[in-house]
Amino acid sequence: MLFPEGVAIDGVTGSVQPATARYAKRLSELRGLFQDERAQERAIVDRDDPVVYEVIDYRKAESDLCFGTTIMSPGKVGAEYYMTRGHFHQRRDRGEAYYTQSGEGLLLLESRAGESRTVEMRPGVCAFIPPDWAHRSINTGSEKLVFVWFCATDAGHEYGEIRERGMRRLVVERDGRMVVTDNPKFLGDGSKLA
Amino acid sequence: MLFPEGVAIDGVTGSVQPATARYAKRLSELRGLFQDERAQERAIVDRDDPVVYEVIDYRKAESDLCFGTTIMSPGKVGAEYYMTRGHFHQRRDRGEAYYTQSGEGLLLLESRAGESRTVEMRPGVCAFIPPDWAHRSINTGSEKLVFVWFCATDAGHEYGEIRERGMRRLVVERDGRMVVTDNPKFLGDGSKLA
Repeated sequence: MLFPEGVAIDGVTGSVQPATARYAKRLSELRGLFQDERAQERAIVDRDDPVVYEVIDYRKAESDLCFGTTIMSPGKVGAEYYMTRGHFHQRRDRGEAYYTQSGEGLLLLESRAGESRTVEMRPGVCAFIPPDWAHRSINTGSEKLVFVWFCATDAGHEYGEIRERGMRRLVVERDGRMVVTDNPKFLGDGSKLA
Repeated sequence: MLFPEGVAIDGVTGSVQPATARYAKRLSELRGLFQDERAQERAIVDRDDPVVYEVIDYRKAESDLCFGTTIMSPGKVGAEYYMTRGHFHQRRDRGEAYYTQSGEGLLLLESRAGESRTVEMRPGVCAFIPPDWAHRSINTGSEKLVFVWFCATDAGHEYGEIRERGMRRLVVERDGRMVVTDNPKFLGDGSKLA
């Protein structure tokens, strides 16, 4: 049987107490994600294979709702900011909420029909992610980006599609400013919209 | 079709921008909730029928997940702190998360089998409410208590059972301190546990 519990979340470090699971993604585990493959290989060596992001779960299989934190390091590979892999949910009827606690970033989204959107991530902004929109978080700032996510426990993660084709937009730094541009390597599927 | 959106939440005032709905509960709408009915009638007059709590929704019928804020005024009726009505969800497989932003309070819960639990509400604590646990929020502090809730859109509210029988515990102030006591007016159903 499940019992209520108070879960202490630190909005600066992203710690979750008690947590049920956690994982970290290092730069070497994210090959193929960034445009500049040589810059990524150099960064893996020069930065000692840094943690790009970490995810901490509070998840009970018997509950319909779970939550946790994502903690994203600041950094770039070439002109691109550190980002998460990006994913759809396996269940197409499951959305999510990302409530930013500290840092600054951009949430990049894509509908199944190919529409792109962004939502600014800053403390106090809760991003509404509708069902069946792929989403990727990008740390565009110089500090850690920490957000709390809330999602149906059975949503599931589907990473393959984004990994294989990429997303339609990139988020890069140009002349010291964040810019959203088209992805020249995007492998379209015929449903590309403006 | 649903689109992503950034929803600005103020953790001190509880404002939600944009919001989809809101309601307030005044003390006169909460007759029967407090033990001391005469103190409640006096307070309705003396305090000009104050707002006890307010709920602001960000809810899209086409999304599985919704969220919003609850803003609870500080105050007491007799020895009892201001509280929400308390409810089960209509869908017994739907839980909830209450993420406190400011103020201090106590979340009082009761399982369908009659077990009572409390979870401290303070900034940074995300209370996990398992499916089929009735829950009531109580502002035990001297400032507003503001929390963000996340829940399945189809969970539904079932207020009747708690309204008719009460909850097994009361949260009162005694000698300037918060105390959890048995409810002498609780109308048990034979499943009462220790």
